[in-house]
Amino acid sequence: MVCLNNMPREYRIRFLPIDRVAPAAEGDNLLEIAMKAGVHINASCGGNGACGKCKVRIAEGSVASSPHRCLSDDEYGKGFRLACSSTVNAGAVVEIPLESQVDRSILRKPAIRDDADAAALIEGSIRDNAFEPLVVKHYLELPGPNPNDNVSDAARLARGFVPGKDGSEMAVPLEVLGDLGKKLRDAHWKVTVTAASNERFREAVLVEEGNRERVHYALAVDVGTTTVCAQLIDCGRGNSGDVKGAPSGNPPVIAESADYNGQISYGEDVISRIMYSRKKGGLKRLQDIVVSTMNRLIEDLIGSACVDAADISHVVVAGNTTMMHLLFGIDPKHIMLAPYTPLATAFAPVSSRRIGLKLGGHARLYTVPGVASYVGGDIVSGVALSGMTSRDEVSLFMDIGTNGEIVLGNSQWLLCASCSAGPAFEGGGIQFGMRAAPGAIEKVRINPANLEPMMITVDRAKPLGICGSGLIDIVAELFMAGAIDQNGKFAEKRSSPRIRKGVSGYEYVLCFAAETKIDKDIVITEVDLDNIMRTKAAVYAGCKVLLENGSLAFPDLGMVIIAGGFGHSIDIEKAVAIGLLPEIPVERFRFLGNGSLGGARMAAVSRSFFEKTGVIARSMTNIELSNNTQFMDEFMAAMFLPHTDEKAFPEVMRVLKTGYRS
Amino acid sequence: MVCLNNMPREYRIRFLPIDRVAPAAEGDNLLEIAMKAGVHINASCGGNGACGKCKVRIAEGSVASSPHRCLSDDEYGKGFRLACSSTVNAGAVVEIPLESQVDRSILRKPAIRDDADAAALIEGSIRDNAFEPLVVKHYLELPGPNPNDNVSDAARLARGFVPGKDGSEMAVPLEVLGDLGKKLRDAHWKVTVTAASNERFREAVLVEEGNRERVHYALAVDVGTTTVCAQLIDCGRGNSGDVKGAPSGNPPVIAESADYNGQISYGEDVISRIMYSRKKGGLKRLQDIVVSTMNRLIEDLIGSACVDAADISHVVVAGNTTMMHLLFGIDPKHIMLAPYTPLATAFAPVSSRRIGLKLGGHARLYTVPGVASYVGGDIVSGVALSGMTSRDEVSLFMDIGTNGEIVLGNSQWLLCASCSAGPAFEGGGIQFGMRAAPGAIEKVRINPANLEPMMITVDRAKPLGICGSGLIDIVAELFMAGAIDQNGKFAEKRSSPRIRKGVSGYEYVLCFAAETKIDKDIVITEVDLDNIMRTKAAVYAGCKVLLENGSLAFPDLGMVIIAGGFGHSIDIEKAVAIGLLPEIPVERFRFLGNGSLGGARMAAVSRSFFEKTGVIARSMTNIELSNNTQFMDEFMAAMFLPHTDEKAFPEVMRVLKTGYRS
Repeated sequence: MVCLNNMPREYRIRFLPIDRVAPAAEGDNLLEIAMKAGVHINASCGGNGACGKCKVRIAEGSVASSPHRCLSDDEYGKGFRLACSSTVNAGAVVEIPLESQVDRSILRKPAIRDDADAAALIEGSIRDNAFEPLVVKHYLELPGPNPNDNVSDAARLARGFVPGKDGSEMAVPLEVLGDLGKKLRDAHWKVTVTAASNERFREAVLVEEGNRERVHYALAVDVGTTTVCAQLIDCGRGNSGDVKGAPSGNPPVIAESADYNGQISYGEDVISRIMYSRKKGGLKRLQDIVVSTMNRLIEDLIGSACVDAADISHVVVAGNTTMMHLLFGIDPKHIMLAPYTPLATAFAPVSSRRIGLKLGGHARLYTVPGVASYVGGDIVSGVALSGMTSRDEVSLFMDIGTNGEIVLGNSQWLLCASCSAGPAFEGGGIQFGMRAAPGAIEKVRINPANLEPMMITVDRAKPLGICGSGLIDIVAELFMAGAIDQNGKFAEKRSSPRIRKGVSGYEYVLCFAAETKIDKDIVITEVDLDNIMRTKAAVYAGCKVLLENGSLAFPDLGMVIIAGGFGHSIDIEKAVAIGLLPEIPVERFRFLGNGSLGGARMAAVSRSFFEKTGVIARSMTNIELSNNTQFMDEFMAAMFLPHTDEKAFPEVMRVLKTGYRS
Repeated sequence: MVCLNNMPREYRIRFLPIDRVAPAAEGDNLLEIAMKAGVHINASCGGNGACGKCKVRIAEGSVASSPHRCLSDDEYGKGFRLACSSTVNAGAVVEIPLESQVDRSILRKPAIRDDADAAALIEGSIRDNAFEPLVVKHYLELPGPNPNDNVSDAARLARGFVPGKDGSEMAVPLEVLGDLGKKLRDAHWKVTVTAASNERFREAVLVEEGNRERVHYALAVDVGTTTVCAQLIDCGRGNSGDVKGAPSGNPPVIAESADYNGQISYGEDVISRIMYSRKKGGLKRLQDIVVSTMNRLIEDLIGSACVDAADISHVVVAGNTTMMHLLFGIDPKHIMLAPYTPLATAFAPVSSRRIGLKLGGHARLYTVPGVASYVGGDIVSGVALSGMTSRDEVSLFMDIGTNGEIVLGNSQWLLCASCSAGPAFEGGGIQFGMRAAPGAIEKVRINPANLEPMMITVDRAKPLGICGSGLIDIVAELFMAGAIDQNGKFAEKRSSPRIRKGVSGYEYVLCFAAETKIDKDIVITEVDLDNIMRTKAAVYAGCKVLLENGSLAFPDLGMVIIAGGFGHSIDIEKAVAIGLLPEIPVERFRFLGNGSLGGARMAAVSRSFFEKTGVIARSMTNIELSNNTQFMDEFMAAMFLPHTDEKAFPEVMRVLKTGYRS
């Protein structure tokens, strides 16, 4: 018997500005209610009260919540609460402040800016890999059977597929055999067969009446922790003789789209996702959510390109190892537990319906293989695209996001590592840090004389916070202006209205409240500086360890390839000034853009490229940096601006000492 | 509205001697009621009233049925009816006469009599093919992960499986990944992995805690049109070092069983089955039935060997092309329609659960590939087993059942054909024909002086009918005794109480009613003789066409390999006397036994043997004999005893003319 008096009371929670009402029982967690209702509130730490990102304002009603170190008394008084630390005790209207909302507008930009730099870099990949999609579509006019030629229908199809061969190159599975006899005869032996690549043979996955060769599409998807980017590729165009010359290997992208990975409501980094996946039903929920995100993108792509989803023959996905575990619904637990062993880094092709994609039953899902828990298929995809494995000169490949993944090598050998850089450059751990969305301060110059800043925000919107490239600029400028010392601490001797003592030590005021969209001073604190120092030191130390393992030094590098959206916007000179990037001739730096997506796209249209990703993944030697003493030494040495080894940054040191830029 | 008066009336039909009662509605077909009730009544023609085999006696009650040419007035008067041509009009007790019942006792014999002949023949296959089951089981003591070695769990498993390799030889599919992480850790990295062979790589299908290497079984199954034979093989024994020497390649069979293919209730030959499969739900029903037969055998085998079904790792099936279509539930229609194209002759491995076998979810089903509609995997299996493709001398392989399948060739080339021999040697189209079950007359000698016979029945039971080897003996003896002429017609000059004019021309009385179990004279008629002539002529003509296509003659043959249960019991000398087999030195004939089962067994324990079956199937050139003028000419020439070309049978002709056997 349940006593009615003991039943939890029911309330209604209204979220603004999205204006969505969710039912809730007394004691329910506010962040969880929002999650269930599909209302986005940023929560970097996965809801454990550590990050303080999930600030909301209780506009009406109340919640049960105590003060928190991330909330000032003033904020608390104004009704601000951390959603993750609040429980329902009455009906309420919850305002989600601008900083806590997800901004989608940034994502409308093409994921790859096809600028000359990236194009030149991947030219080799395009040239070296023949146009042969992982799933091909061939129109066959088969000779009908006769008494002198009455091989099986399956053998006839296979023989027609690879003329002159005995047909053993193509398997025809039971699914296709089902109605094959009728289909072939109804079509008078004129059919289009769609054949998927397996390890070393083809498998018929669809037989259609008549010539449908040109109606043949593929999807390339980069499943990132934050963002999912997808492109729709017209494989049918590359199929036809008349345009074979031009787009050979250069897949015609006919639509592209991107969206935040729906999983960000469950934590901003992979660790929070893994934590969530360990809750009951968590793994399944995270899988469902990323699949929903992908399905939303598919709908978007086919809508804008006027393509039928049933005509998409295959999908190639690249993503980090955790994302792949969650996509396939397999337990990622050990990725976060030492010694960090993933369950798998390579996945056999499966039917895309297997994970719930809304495509035809025949559409195959291929995955670019990864290397280790923190060096995933997204990196392998980018490395393959960059062509560094086809060159004899040694390249350093860097993808700096939450983790800095780095790969060193050439056509003979490959070393890789992930240097837990921390999320500073994506806004994590930085008081006013944010992603590169509108309002993010992305470029900063500081007048050395009076420390007055000049800045540019994304889309020129009123400042909301500071994104990665802005942070690099600020640190470099404050350092070169002498406002902070080589330890990243404010030089107290510089008196300026912009340098002041705040709640957590000294801080520099970039924008005063009146100038911002958030009615608060946007500052950079010594705590922020320390976080940036750690991040840049980790990346530099990681590179150093890889180089030493290859008995090389920075000057030996023929090329430094910077991949990823963040990399694309940074100012090389400033990044060198703070010691994030090494001081080598600037022309050796190359920007690749979204290498993960680019590689997935190449794999979709080139079986040889896809096979190469497997070879690359297997030949990469992963150097584990956690608990690596060499790395710890290098890290400590790099916790200095630009570096304790000043000889490695002669030009930076010269400018610092002379104030003269050559 | 349904008017109750129009509802068909319900009756009960009791079948004897099995004593099973089935409900039936007015107008229901009696044969179909029996089928549904699981009561066996022979019906060679699939229930179309043509064969007259489904004779039953209405002991009580009545059925609606008119007289039929296969029923004498006397029989009709005694209450005999053809079940296929009778419909229910009242309750009834239906007696199934002995001749119409299926006798299972014959099947208890081992499917292969491992006599010296067969053993010597397959010795080469055993020697040349290493013991490496299609699905292997290996115990691995994996090193646990550590910071210097933290590859994925899947890669660790694969690497442990093929030490020294990078693991790309084994795939670990999603099904196995599901709980792999927990399993490996619970087992402290000591696990037994079961890995199945795919085209050119292995796939993990099961991971078990601890060392389970020796608990590893396979099934070999010959799915025949009439009989399904199965053997349970202990692959675990071959796995262990201590016994590796002895059974290498020679799989230890620990249990064997056989049963009639449940489909025989739906027609005795493949054509009747295909006809039935075209009815609504027919294909599904035939699939279900053969799978039930297989499941019954599996139960039998695991029961007698005390093995857990979950420990069976794989099944290898060999059967004719129609049987494989029905097993996989794919439409066999075009097998019976010119130009006789099957839907498929090779099938990719599938989960055995896919077709409904009661085995573990990981158990794989492999199929020996076939060549054409009438040259199936059963023949390829036997050819591979016989070792003829490893020898330079030319062999002729013959499997004489309902169709005579023949293969000619050596290590360089292979020709094959199916010569619609007709079911005479299996009792079809012969008035008192029957299979080699107890009571079947299997050996006959006839005194040339008075034409009195001496005969032996299977199991020495009271005569019920005549089986194939008996028919060959009778024809040869009647011919050599001068009772029938070279056209197979009774020589009227021989007056004997055993030669008389019957309803369908002259006939020879082998047993008088009193001596039989059926209280009827067992005779052989001129119609029977004509059917036997057609059968032997078709086989001989088929061989002749193959030889001519290879520019060879019978004397060029190094070996004639006779496969199949029927072949095993025939008297070579008599078969040569009637011109079924060619007159060549008797020592060149070899008996293989059930080559289909033997080959499936070899494939189960030898991946190289299985791969060889694929190579053999693809390299066989099938000569289509229907509508082949060369075949028709040879067939007409062979419609003579022993043959119109007497020079091809010099010894037979010499004995015939001199009466002296050398």
